[in-house]
Amino acid sequence: MTDSKRNGNGGNILVFTGEGKGKTTSAIGQIIRAAGHGLRTKLVTFFKGNEDRFERGTFNILRKLEVPITNFSNEHPDFGHQNTQEAEEECAGALNCLREFFHSEGKHYDLLVLDEVNVALSTGYLDEEKFLSLLDERPQGLEIVCTGRGAPESLVKKADLVSRIENVKHFYEKGVVTRAGYEY
Amino acid sequence: MTDSKRNGNGGNILVFTGEGKGKTTSAIGQIIRAAGHGLRTKLVTFFKGNEDRFERGTFNILRKLEVPITNFSNEHPDFGHQNTQEAEEECAGALNCLREFFHSEGKHYDLLVLDEVNVALSTGYLDEEKFLSLLDERPQGLEIVCTGRGAPESLVKKADLVSRIENVKHFYEKGVVTRAGYEY
Repeated sequence: MTDSKRNGNGGNILVFTGEGKGKTTSAIGQIIRAAGHGLRTKLVTFFKGNEDRFERGTFNILRKLEVPITNFSNEHPDFGHQNTQEAEEECAGALNCLREFFHSEGKHYDLLVLDEVNVALSTGYLDEEKFLSLLDERPQGLEIVCTGRGAPESLVKKADLVSRIENVKHFYEKGVVTRAGYEY
Repeated sequence: MTDSKRNGNGGNILVFTGEGKGKTTSAIGQIIRAAGHGLRTKLVTFFKGNEDRFERGTFNILRKLEVPITNFSNEHPDFGHQNTQEAEEECAGALNCLREFFHSEGKHYDLLVLDEVNVALSTGYLDEEKFLSLLDERPQGLEIVCTGRGAPESLVKKADLVSRIENVKHFYEKGVVTRAGYEY
């Protein structure tokens, strides 16, 4: 049992949204900070199953640190080759897995990152109402970070902390798009 | 030599600023992503020398990953017990150390994070003009991330990517301020 838990301050819901760079990396930084204090963390990603394209570098390090990683839906149907129906089914499956996690080992964890869950919600692959209701089942002391563009208003309302990352200037405009180690 | 360097896309300046939570953690996430691809990274912090209060968790993990860390000025004079003159001297020393780094081993690095450098600049402890001019001496291929509130306009103008993290809602208002593993 950690100091944080003894302080009774766990269980917050954090949302990192907006168009700018820094949402996923910020959540990963939260995992690193927590892991460095001996807290137990878990990463769940949506649409990042294709490690040739997504987060291979980050996953390499998190595995070294023994942070469990689970992905649902290889790619987002709008941007990759994932079949729409499969994506829907995988997101529905995610709800079941999260419920199972909340009611079993989840109580032994301190931080859960749901990377790109906002995108899964805003594009309708993950059922908003069911997800919001599921959050109420989270164990006390489990802090949850939800990342991705377009966080729905219902989630923003429910959250304890919301950071919106504004894209003031981005080198995508100069043609730099995806470089291993920098963008994924 | 990495793929990224071969692509000739290094050397960007990134700025994470704004009032919201997620600036330092985002930069740490960038280090993790880069390290996971075998890129060489370095962290320089300002005002985070007191590990009882700042980033102990993150530092624990980065040391495990053999990321070198250097801090200048233990605390910010406005918020800690650091002597004003000492802080000024330490920040001036940082300029010399960075110049030395840029012209020696820096060319073997891929990513340098200057955590809270924006605060050092905006509060005048680090000389803005000298710092901006020093950035021009960075080795080709070294990407630099500058974090902290209040990034000066001159830096925003010079940068290739700027994310401003807006504080939409923050649980500081509820009294949760600093918890090991979550806020540091």
